[in-house]
Amino acid sequence: MQERLEQILEECRKYTWEGEVADYIPELAKANREEIGIYVATDHGEFFAGDWEKQFTIQSIVKTIFLMLAAQDNGIQYVKDHVGVEATGKPFNAIDYAEHKLLREHINPMVNIGAIAVCELVKASSNDERLERLLNYTRDITGNPKLEVDHAVYLSEKRTGHKNRALAYLLKNSGMIVGDVEELLDVYFAMCSVKVNCQDLAKMGMLLANHGKGVKSGRQIIPKADARFINAVLTTSGMYDGSGEFATRVGLPAKSGVGGGIMANKPGSMGIGIYSPALDRKGNSIAGIKMLEKLSREMDLSIF
Amino acid sequence: MQERLEQILEECRKYTWEGEVADYIPELAKANREEIGIYVATDHGEFFAGDWEKQFTIQSIVKTIFLMLAAQDNGIQYVKDHVGVEATGKPFNAIDYAEHKLLREHINPMVNIGAIAVCELVKASSNDERLERLLNYTRDITGNPKLEVDHAVYLSEKRTGHKNRALAYLLKNSGMIVGDVEELLDVYFAMCSVKVNCQDLAKMGMLLANHGKGVKSGRQIIPKADARFINAVLTTSGMYDGSGEFATRVGLPAKSGVGGGIMANKPGSMGIGIYSPALDRKGNSIAGIKMLEKLSREMDLSIF
Amino acid sequence: MQERLEQILEECRKYTWEGEVADYIPELAKANREEIGIYVATDHGEFFAGDWEKQFTIQSIVKTIFLMLAAQDNGIQYVKDHVGVEATGKPFNAIDYAEHKLLREHINPMVNIGAIAVCELVKASSNDERLERLLNYTRDITGNPKLEVDHAVYLSEKRTGHKNRALAYLLKNSGMIVGDVEELLDVYFAMCSVKVNCQDLAKMGMLLANHGKGVKSGRQIIPKADARFINAVLTTSGMYDGSGEFATRVGLPAKSGVGGGIMANKPGSMGIGIYSPALDRKGNSIAGIKMLEKLSREMDLSIF
Amino acid sequence: MQERLEQILEECRKYTWEGEVADYIPELAKANREEIGIYVATDHGEFFAGDWEKQFTIQSIVKTIFLMLAAQDNGIQYVKDHVGVEATGKPFNAIDYAEHKLLREHINPMVNIGAIAVCELVKASSNDERLERLLNYTRDITGNPKLEVDHAVYLSEKRTGHKNRALAYLLKNSGMIVGDVEELLDVYFAMCSVKVNCQDLAKMGMLLANHGKGVKSGRQIIPKADARFINAVLTTSGMYDGSGEFATRVGLPAKSGVGGGIMANKPGSMGIGIYSPALDRKGNSIAGIKMLEKLSREMDLSIF
Repeated sequence: MQERLEQILEECRKYTWEGEVADYIPELAKANREEIGIYVATDHGEFFAGDWEKQFTIQSIVKTIFLMLAAQDNGIQYVKDHVGVEATGKPFNAIDYAEHKLLREHINPMVNIGAIAVCELVKASSNDERLERLLNYTRDITGNPKLEVDHAVYLSEKRTGHKNRALAYLLKNSGMIVGDVEELLDVYFAMCSVKVNCQDLAKMGMLLANHGKGVKSGRQIIPKADARFINAVLTTSGMYDGSGEFATRVGLPAKSGVGGGIMANKPGSMGIGIYSPALDRKGNSIAGIKMLEKLSREMDLSIF
Repeated sequence: MQERLEQILEECRKYTWEGEVADYIPELAKANREEIGIYVATDHGEFFAGDWEKQFTIQSIVKTIFLMLAAQDNGIQYVKDHVGVEATGKPFNAIDYAEHKLLREHINPMVNIGAIAVCELVKASSNDERLERLLNYTRDITGNPKLEVDHAVYLSEKRTGHKNRALAYLLKNSGMIVGDVEELLDVYFAMCSVKVNCQDLAKMGMLLANHGKGVKSGRQIIPKADARFINAVLTTSGMYDGSGEFATRVGLPAKSGVGGGIMANKPGSMGIGIYSPALDRKGNSIAGIKMLEKLSREMDLSIF
Repeated sequence: MQERLEQILEECRKYTWEGEVADYIPELAKANREEIGIYVATDHGEFFAGDWEKQFTIQSIVKTIFLMLAAQDNGIQYVKDHVGVEATGKPFNAIDYAEHKLLREHINPMVNIGAIAVCELVKASSNDERLERLLNYTRDITGNPKLEVDHAVYLSEKRTGHKNRALAYLLKNSGMIVGDVEELLDVYFAMCSVKVNCQDLAKMGMLLANHGKGVKSGRQIIPKADARFINAVLTTSGMYDGSGEFATRVGLPAKSGVGGGIMANKPGSMGIGIYSPALDRKGNSIAGIKMLEKLSREMDLSIF
Repeated sequence: MQERLEQILEECRKYTWEGEVADYIPELAKANREEIGIYVATDHGEFFAGDWEKQFTIQSIVKTIFLMLAAQDNGIQYVKDHVGVEATGKPFNAIDYAEHKLLREHINPMVNIGAIAVCELVKASSNDERLERLLNYTRDITGNPKLEVDHAVYLSEKRTGHKNRALAYLLKNSGMIVGDVEELLDVYFAMCSVKVNCQDLAKMGMLLANHGKGVKSGRQIIPKADARFINAVLTTSGMYDGSGEFATRVGLPAKSGVGGGIMANKPGSMGIGIYSPALDRKGNSIAGIKMLEKLSREMDLSIF
């Protein structure tokens, strides 16, 4: 397995030259497009290749964490009463008089507007506490107590995040954010800026694959039904507008981030962490998807 | 004329019971739906009926003022290079990853998002100065030096104006607002809260009708080309989604506000100010449009 | 006037090299982009310059004729109960299960889908009779009994008009076409293929300008209210997505066609016919709009 | 298992009173909402309960068959080059001049417009042959040589199918249908009208579950990669706008039809056929989904 992983990575290295590194903030633009890493966690061992120890910001993969903790805090049904789970985005007309309220069924926890709404569902008496809880939860599910926010990325996100700010005020206008918008965005921006590596993502994937049970501890860290719920949402909308294509090529629940990471899992057996920062036009790591495609085909991993 | 005006008003009084007073902020909800007023300014005299002295907030009619002063400060072409003038709103997809930037041709100075952008085109070294200039300009073109902001309405608009905030951050995200968003919104909210009466609106309409020349002074207060430009924009999009219908029924350049006011004019001869706070679903005063329709038909005012 | 017209045409000749001749059917692509003509009809004489005698197909300008005859046959209110008059097009989702019916207020008589619906409102016991009535009406209002359908263009339109066919079946699906779709499309395609010249369009414009009264006969050919209704609709949506811009630059009711024609009028005084086949991206004749802009500015024609 | 199935069916019988039977054609409206059936095919036996023998029209479930045969005829990549696989429908603007062509990535084989396009990808020298091949293929994969078209339903669909006609002409206009539109629609309407029962759907599901291998014969009827491709598409978009919700509640690849059928499968082990004609607002059988949800939960079938 270890050998096979190294081989797959080498075969996909050429794809690191396709696509573009995200450049909407300077910190992301600094990423080295030649870096590529993979980490696979199974119940009979862990395997890795390339730059798996390289740290990068978690970005949109954190949406999975918002959804996990919000579901644990409130139950799945409560969360589904607050945000939809369909991939079919409806357009929003910015221009008419009528108070065209956003409808809950038009947002999705795997896109920014839905993730901001879900973030507020994480229970806390203040946004500071919310951030603290989310950070500690992330350390728990990755098994890495050292995870921290990249402060420079956080500040950049906060300074330039006007589209997220617009989306958050749309939510506020529709009563889908109850508290202070800027404070909540601070939590959102900070959590998007948590630095992780491939191992962290693989551990997180393994927890979902193992239906919420800690691999070593055997302890049920999140309910089995929650793990399945998350995997269902990841499969239908975890890869942005490329979720359908990803399902046909890879066939695994996964979530990507513009930092170049992908967290994937094979329910029942495997967690996978990927890093390669050059993205396709939909915001997904190109070499990352290629590695997953090869791995899935060779090891017959598809859930379909 | 005076008599005819009073008659028309009485005939339309029954329509004050149709539609609804705007209620998104408490101050607007307090409006008395039974009030109805009209004021007509011509070069051979002024005529009025009903509650023409009643003050109400100018609301969206102020968009006309933003456009007038921005055009004067920068020239028409510059303004048209920054915002479109088509009524055809394009939908905005709140949900995808891609940086779907707003395009200038998709916004219009007569709807909120465009008006916010135009507001910043008013030249000033600070937003305080911008507000000061706009207030003084409004006093000039209405000939009423006593016009003031209704502070309670302003505070309400500011506190609840999350949709406008969302639109402003969309503009910021697309580089269509350069400076501070909240400060600019303060100018916007304050100017929407200026208290006017029917006479003020009629004077403003008369200035446009007179192609920018002061009726008494004979002085060219705004360029003739600017007056025509404003009237063209008002005709194609001054009455929100009801602009086409209004053109077929009334046939005059006009702008409405959710405060219940309408400012209209017959190019060459007449300025009209209207007040009646109950609105149709498109945000236009119902009894107000009825009075304009009757007046236009009986006096053969249509520009078509 | 005659001299001024020739001068304006020469000044605008250079714009015939901008834009593109419509090429979706071979017959239109054959148009000579160097041709340019103008014809102005007033109550004190007629003036013309360039290729005003050149014949071309009327195309979308015929939408005005559908609307005129439908209004005469049924009354304005009946027509407005069947199609909207707003320029704000709403998007149609081709992809969902729900029977998202088209709403009347979302279509407009100046765009294809609305014009097809209006065409059926012309009273007739058969579509052959409908075509006959429309042809004769067109001959009446242009004062040209020799007008005929260009059969080659008609056949091309019919053979390639799949988008119009799609729109017509959408109307049928929403109950907005009652009779046979293909037969109605035959009327539509045939009427779009009527050959006219600048004089024909100017005469038609003059009838609208004269509020429906025949210039020579003094006979009220169409009701005054109908003429104004048509002009209101032309002003807010006669130039496709360029109607707002056209209002600010020219300020006259007008309708364009992809054949390169424009029919315009100055209410009260003037009908104008234009020909120049190279179009901008919105489907309007570039040199044609330039001539109208110059003419309007120099003769102070704007209605605003 | 047999007993458990009967119990689940009885527990869900009450849901047959929720929602509405499809009524856009008289033949569908005649369905008896009290009927409810289920059939489960596994490699160690077949189980069934209720009205599993009742015949109904396959409707949209046939989209799966179009996709299977088109993929077999042309290869998966060729099919994906012709239609997209994302669930995110893009709106289509029916109203503008510009030739807003449909893009392949905006259509999906599991919604009408995409299914019509995929239908033409089935290789044939005529549409009669296409229908013949599709019918025989359907008989093959269900193992039921007696399957036939319900002629009354076919005629009704053909007579009232104006929205599908509109969609087909949109495809034609964008070059996404090459041949005759009405002939192709005839194939489409006929195939939607094939009468099946729960057993037929379960056999079809079992073939997908078994990755294309015939259960008894052991023969590879469709390639394994094709079976997985189909299951991926079913999972992300087989249940219309309810696909995301279905994934979270049931977690199986499935396709529904407005006739009241659902074809589902558990990859590796099970094919399921469902019938209950009362539908939710998204067009899916209410009691059908309930039965699948219970079955999935009790037997731990979810793929996630």
